[in-house]
Amino acid sequence: MGKSVSVSPLAPAEFPNLPVIDGVEFSTAAAAIRHHERPDVMLARMAPGTTVAGVFTRSSMRSASVLDCQEKIVLHDDSGAAIIVNSGNANAFTGRNGAMAVKSVTKSAAEILGLPESRVFSSSTGVIGEKLPHERINAKLRELSQSLSPHGARNAALAITTTDTFPKGAGKTLEINGNHVNIAGIAKGSGMIAPDMATMLSYVFTDAKISRALLQRKVSEFSKTTFNGITVDGDTSTSDTVLVAATAKSGVEITDDCKEFWDGLHQIMLELAQLIVRDGEGATKFVEVSVSGAISASDARIHALSIANSPLVKTAIAGEDPNWGRIVMAIGKSGALADRDKLTIHIGDILVAAEGWAAPEYVEKDAAEYMKNRDIAIRVDIGLGRERAVVWTCDFTHGYIAINADYRS
Amino acid sequence: MGKSVSVSPLAPAEFPNLPVIDGVEFSTAAAAIRHHERPDVMLARMAPGTTVAGVFTRSSMRSASVLDCQEKIVLHDDSGAAIIVNSGNANAFTGRNGAMAVKSVTKSAAEILGLPESRVFSSSTGVIGEKLPHERINAKLRELSQSLSPHGARNAALAITTTDTFPKGAGKTLEINGNHVNIAGIAKGSGMIAPDMATMLSYVFTDAKISRALLQRKVSEFSKTTFNGITVDGDTSTSDTVLVAATAKSGVEITDDCKEFWDGLHQIMLELAQLIVRDGEGATKFVEVSVSGAISASDARIHALSIANSPLVKTAIAGEDPNWGRIVMAIGKSGALADRDKLTIHIGDILVAAEGWAAPEYVEKDAAEYMKNRDIAIRVDIGLGRERAVVWTCDFTHGYIAINADYRS
Repeated sequence: MGKSVSVSPLAPAEFPNLPVIDGVEFSTAAAAIRHHERPDVMLARMAPGTTVAGVFTRSSMRSASVLDCQEKIVLHDDSGAAIIVNSGNANAFTGRNGAMAVKSVTKSAAEILGLPESRVFSSSTGVIGEKLPHERINAKLRELSQSLSPHGARNAALAITTTDTFPKGAGKTLEINGNHVNIAGIAKGSGMIAPDMATMLSYVFTDAKISRALLQRKVSEFSKTTFNGITVDGDTSTSDTVLVAATAKSGVEITDDCKEFWDGLHQIMLELAQLIVRDGEGATKFVEVSVSGAISASDARIHALSIANSPLVKTAIAGEDPNWGRIVMAIGKSGALADRDKLTIHIGDILVAAEGWAAPEYVEKDAAEYMKNRDIAIRVDIGLGRERAVVWTCDFTHGYIAINADYRS
Repeated sequence: MGKSVSVSPLAPAEFPNLPVIDGVEFSTAAAAIRHHERPDVMLARMAPGTTVAGVFTRSSMRSASVLDCQEKIVLHDDSGAAIIVNSGNANAFTGRNGAMAVKSVTKSAAEILGLPESRVFSSSTGVIGEKLPHERINAKLRELSQSLSPHGARNAALAITTTDTFPKGAGKTLEINGNHVNIAGIAKGSGMIAPDMATMLSYVFTDAKISRALLQRKVSEFSKTTFNGITVDGDTSTSDTVLVAATAKSGVEITDDCKEFWDGLHQIMLELAQLIVRDGEGATKFVEVSVSGAISASDARIHALSIANSPLVKTAIAGEDPNWGRIVMAIGKSGALADRDKLTIHIGDILVAAEGWAAPEYVEKDAAEYMKNRDIAIRVDIGLGRERAVVWTCDFTHGYIAINADYRS
């Protein structure tokens, strides 16, 4: 956005060495959607036989490409698939033009790639409310289709970034019954992003063979504890999209009970989600909030999100202040069931509060020392039931305000 | 808190000249609860025949004094009443000690004032989780009872402040059927307050004669559109308390249909609530968010609060950026019903978006000019029904982060 931002202090040292996924190829192009100096469109093509599952934002203002993906995701045929993504413009709140732009891009891509239109998925991320210059994407489709490479994941991860300070990827190779199965994914997002930017996007690929219905069921389930378990500012984008594609090229068929594979996929989804938090706008701390002992999973999640989204909790963490009174406040205001005298709060391994009051052995100096860490864990036991939830967030700093308020679009 | 803070730029020029309420006297004392240099306890005594109504925080972590008030508020006798409030310590999350402290203070005050214990209400505001040194309050009760004055409202408003940058009062004199009826109130609050502070408190007094049941019904109703219509950071205190006392001393009996009086009381409650927003931590803009055309009042309120609590909307306002895409985002994420193509958004009187897209006549320069105002109005019509809601908030600035993160308690 014309403003140079240094890499998040929470970023990993480097982009990982992702396994190549047989049946998946990537390419990128510079279409000058908004930025004029770097690739801003990525294409991923998947081989015939690929199944695709997806989860999407629940915003009532869903973007045109999300609505289009939601229609297509329930269909399947064996002809292969493609994903085309642009950064710089979200094509959200763009009226009838938005749907026309999606139709134009996906139709053109389908023709060039020899796929049915229903198998071309798209995402757009960037400014809301401005007409997507889709003809610029169309003009690059031929180039994109001719430069596809199985090694293009890192470039693809870069092309879909907006205000991200680093490209995000995660992958692993599993051994299942003596065969190798690979999973690799990319993601973008760093909050509901500055200054007009919006969106968390993630695309995960595997060479496993998985039926569409099973893959969809697992991806929906895993999203709850991965992509839906992160929050930077509580602001939900109009365009959030997670697509998971299985090419079947490894020949290894995955069934419902193949724990190794599903654990592996869950882990990759979680790593990608956590990378987004690690790039949270202005973030200097990575925070895990665990709530146990709630009477329902929903209550546990409501408490955890109330803590993770509280500006007062998040500013206290930024200030390295073990201000557990604000955690009590956030639990109190959440609307979910809690009983003051049954609550237990840990900051790291330090018991700070129990039985309705500061723990007798609590020494604030120790907790203040712990708060200097980059990764902070807050653990709350509600003491009423057996259900739990974990969410991840970052702290709330001057950097967030600077990114979102000081810069005029 | 030892840190000098300049007065909010949104503060009124001066504390208003409040009408004296016959039957109400105030006094203050310096009990060194936390600050050692200024009065931090206030006492209000109301004459025999006074009725009292109240509304309280819904936090499940309600403080000991809130729980005590809630038990007492439903009772009534004609012997008069008192309110005793301390700043510096919230007496919240203080276990069994908290309830004992409230019992001790209200019992001692009752004895000295010659009132039943059930007629002495109390509030505490300040640090959460530290034992209230209630014996310091008790030690001042004699002095407080001997210095009561009908002219002490401004000093009372000062004594209950924590990180407030100005004392808050509002009052007016009504003429009802040829008789004068007076209303005067004080309030404190400036967010869920730094660094451990918490709470919105307000006490309103009138010399009207009103039955307890009627007063309670109206105060509960009016709270929805006044004190429950403001938000600084979406963080709800453990101690929020609004008490309204009617002394009957004017001899003017108010019935359900006395529109002039109820409008007057509503206006005072609204003024006090808005003063709290005008003292919002770090605030530089006062923001009114109106939502109309929702299918239910509840949906209208959910949309309005989603906009008013969105960090991205609030930082855009701080940056004087007419970033209506973020308003669209906030409506989309709220969970209440909305339809992109039926939405209309105004910033001030400027139509920015309609029919699913930027309004054709919208000129961003005009909206950017409007955003330079201190008071900002955002109006959204959902276009689905006839219900509406209005909430008030402030912008989200470096000042908020500085107050809440940079200062270690």
